[in-house]
Amino acid sequence: MLLLYLRDIMIQCPRGTRDFLPDEMERRRHYENILRTTAGTFGFREVATPIFEETELFVMRSGPNIMNELYAFKDKGDRDIALRPELTAPVIRMFVNGMSNEPRPLKLFYFGQCFRYERPQSGRYREFFQFGAELIGNANAETDAEVIALAASMIRALGLKEYKIRVGHIGVLRQSLADAGVPRERMPEILQKLDKKLYDEALPLLNDMGVDNDVADRIFKITGTVGGKEVLDLITDEAASYLRELIDVLAAMNITDVEIDLGVVRGLDYYTGIVFEAEAPSLGAEKQICGGGSYSLSELFGGEKVFSTGFAIGFDRILLAMEREGQTFRRKGIDAYVVPVSDDVRLDAAGIVSMLRSNGISADVDIMRRKMAKAMKQASAVNARYAVIVGRNELNENSVTVRNMVTGDQKMVRLDGLVSTFK
Amino acid sequence: MLLLYLRDIMIQCPRGTRDFLPDEMERRRHYENILRTTAGTFGFREVATPIFEETELFVMRSGPNIMNELYAFKDKGDRDIALRPELTAPVIRMFVNGMSNEPRPLKLFYFGQCFRYERPQSGRYREFFQFGAELIGNANAETDAEVIALAASMIRALGLKEYKIRVGHIGVLRQSLADAGVPRERMPEILQKLDKKLYDEALPLLNDMGVDNDVADRIFKITGTVGGKEVLDLITDEAASYLRELIDVLAAMNITDVEIDLGVVRGLDYYTGIVFEAEAPSLGAEKQICGGGSYSLSELFGGEKVFSTGFAIGFDRILLAMEREGQTFRRKGIDAYVVPVSDDVRLDAAGIVSMLRSNGISADVDIMRRKMAKAMKQASAVNARYAVIVGRNELNENSVTVRNMVTGDQKMVRLDGLVSTFK
Repeated sequence: MLLLYLRDIMIQCPRGTRDFLPDEMERRRHYENILRTTAGTFGFREVATPIFEETELFVMRSGPNIMNELYAFKDKGDRDIALRPELTAPVIRMFVNGMSNEPRPLKLFYFGQCFRYERPQSGRYREFFQFGAELIGNANAETDAEVIALAASMIRALGLKEYKIRVGHIGVLRQSLADAGVPRERMPEILQKLDKKLYDEALPLLNDMGVDNDVADRIFKITGTVGGKEVLDLITDEAASYLRELIDVLAAMNITDVEIDLGVVRGLDYYTGIVFEAEAPSLGAEKQICGGGSYSLSELFGGEKVFSTGFAIGFDRILLAMEREGQTFRRKGIDAYVVPVSDDVRLDAAGIVSMLRSNGISADVDIMRRKMAKAMKQASAVNARYAVIVGRNELNENSVTVRNMVTGDQKMVRLDGLVSTFK
Repeated sequence: MLLLYLRDIMIQCPRGTRDFLPDEMERRRHYENILRTTAGTFGFREVATPIFEETELFVMRSGPNIMNELYAFKDKGDRDIALRPELTAPVIRMFVNGMSNEPRPLKLFYFGQCFRYERPQSGRYREFFQFGAELIGNANAETDAEVIALAASMIRALGLKEYKIRVGHIGVLRQSLADAGVPRERMPEILQKLDKKLYDEALPLLNDMGVDNDVADRIFKITGTVGGKEVLDLITDEAASYLRELIDVLAAMNITDVEIDLGVVRGLDYYTGIVFEAEAPSLGAEKQICGGGSYSLSELFGGEKVFSTGFAIGFDRILLAMEREGQTFRRKGIDAYVVPVSDDVRLDAAGIVSMLRSNGISADVDIMRRKMAKAMKQASAVNARYAVIVGRNELNENSVTVRNMVTGDQKMVRLDGLVSTFK
């Protein structure tokens, strides 16, 4: 009864959001830093944009339907603002506002929270974390290879074992649709159906535009083209030869596990060339962990037309995939836990813990005035490698007792040699 | 005219928020990591909470006036939510929800964005960054010393030269007000006036509660008590002797630049003991860079009563103070910039840059097919230590040319020895 009452008044974190407790946070920071280091190794540099933007920015990028899942509201100055649902639009806005005169190409990456109001499910949250990169200001096979290689290297660096990267080219389908007489402005609705392999829904639309069943069928077959470079042999257009070149550059970069899949389609109009996705089979239905492609977006935001290639990795999903594969993470713990044996040595203990810390040794100290046995239990609870036991008799000889928390071995150590015990 | 037009349609980041471009971001991450490392050295562990919470949480902590500066709105499920204006309430909520059975004390820290709708000014933003720590589950002088020592060590570790830390105790004034007959529930309004040294406004309030001018005057004098431990000599209450003990522990920890200032008052009702602030004089009127104290908040959120001590550092403000003191930061740059001399060695260049990266060497590659002079300019622009020039003739001898970008010295290096050039 009391418990029910408490549960009722206790405020929880909002639905679809999470608290990250210390063990989980340490794990997340560890993998976040692996991604950051990998991006730095590729010459990408980090940027950050605000948590919210003018709502218009996201509508411009994704169309009015995005409103259905935006956290959009009016601020006290009556501005329409929205929590960011993704980071490509903000980064390109930032580029247009303040970086368009920088030497090209710009190689930028970001890591941060995004927000979508949708039904929470496994690996899918209302507040979720994305790691992404944008290479701005160039369009050729080396550019796209650079970006795909970064995505692949990040996934490898995290230690994910089972994953698949599939690359397509929006140009192949666009060309076929154009050849069949589909007007440019009606392509997005067809592409969205093909992206989801909803041929039954695409067919009447195509018929309606005057495309007969045979031609439609040939278009549908293209979306089933999957495999190595050789699957492009039957396709003669520019996009196919571009994909061949891309696969060659990737192979030179030792990225050989990328598959061609012309069924990788992204419905949005601003994609200009390649599109790619990575998935982790261990995740089942929600298996996509990364998506990207080459695009041109800056002119939408009032800048000049600039070609870019980028991707975003779903950080929560990829962590979940690693977990599913049984990857574990061990907390680091601290070097020393300092225990004053009696009240009269508390100030000495404070001095010792302080000396350790100022030498870069991570150290905690008993501030609960615990008895020895309980203090040792706490030393274990905080995962200390050593306990430093401070007693009056030892101090009189300028010494303390150091206990190895794993083996239980103890030894007297002089204070002036204490720091070196931990190096 | 064109420029005006462009400015009109170009979306900017919302007022009071900022984009962080690569140089600034690198600087911020550098200092953020210094704070994180320092906290880790003290045995504090990082946690994170959502960007938004139920609005009620912040009202419970700070009172209804907080609504005036909250980014508060309704989500699509008609829930009242608000972007967090601070992180103490969320961290204590997290503790109540999921950590109340953990061994005490809990030593937690956090770093993240907070949001307040107020007039933007120097060092003051609508989206701002706070670094903070909470030590949960104990109340004594060692506990408070541990927290103040962490704050002081963080400020020092950042390299800020001019700063002042002042410690008071809410108990001294509360006791005097109680002795003068001020009822407990009316203390916050008096304390808020005293915090801002608004004696003229406090006096009529006190008179109204039956406190005569002489007694009021004695209370006002307390708020002017500033200096070393000796200024407490005339005060006999419990709070004063607690402060003496605290100063002794801090001295044992080699923190001797903390001043006693009984004028440090925090108006909120949940403070239970010491209160402290740090300021950087270089910042002028908005000089506070850190504020904290000991408090009890968990029972407000439906948990048991637990004593804690914590603080928050204004990350933007402290960076501004460092800048004002002339502290500069140099970007790290990358190790190598790989330049293919002709089109026929592009794949070789891709292979070389990839080999460097997989050995942990940060490397970029020309993907713009630039001529040599322009490629060298780009190598400088990305702050490369070396350029790796890939030519057909050298490749035929399994070699490349490595140019030191500072001295301009060049040498031939065999491919199988290239990695070790950068170690």
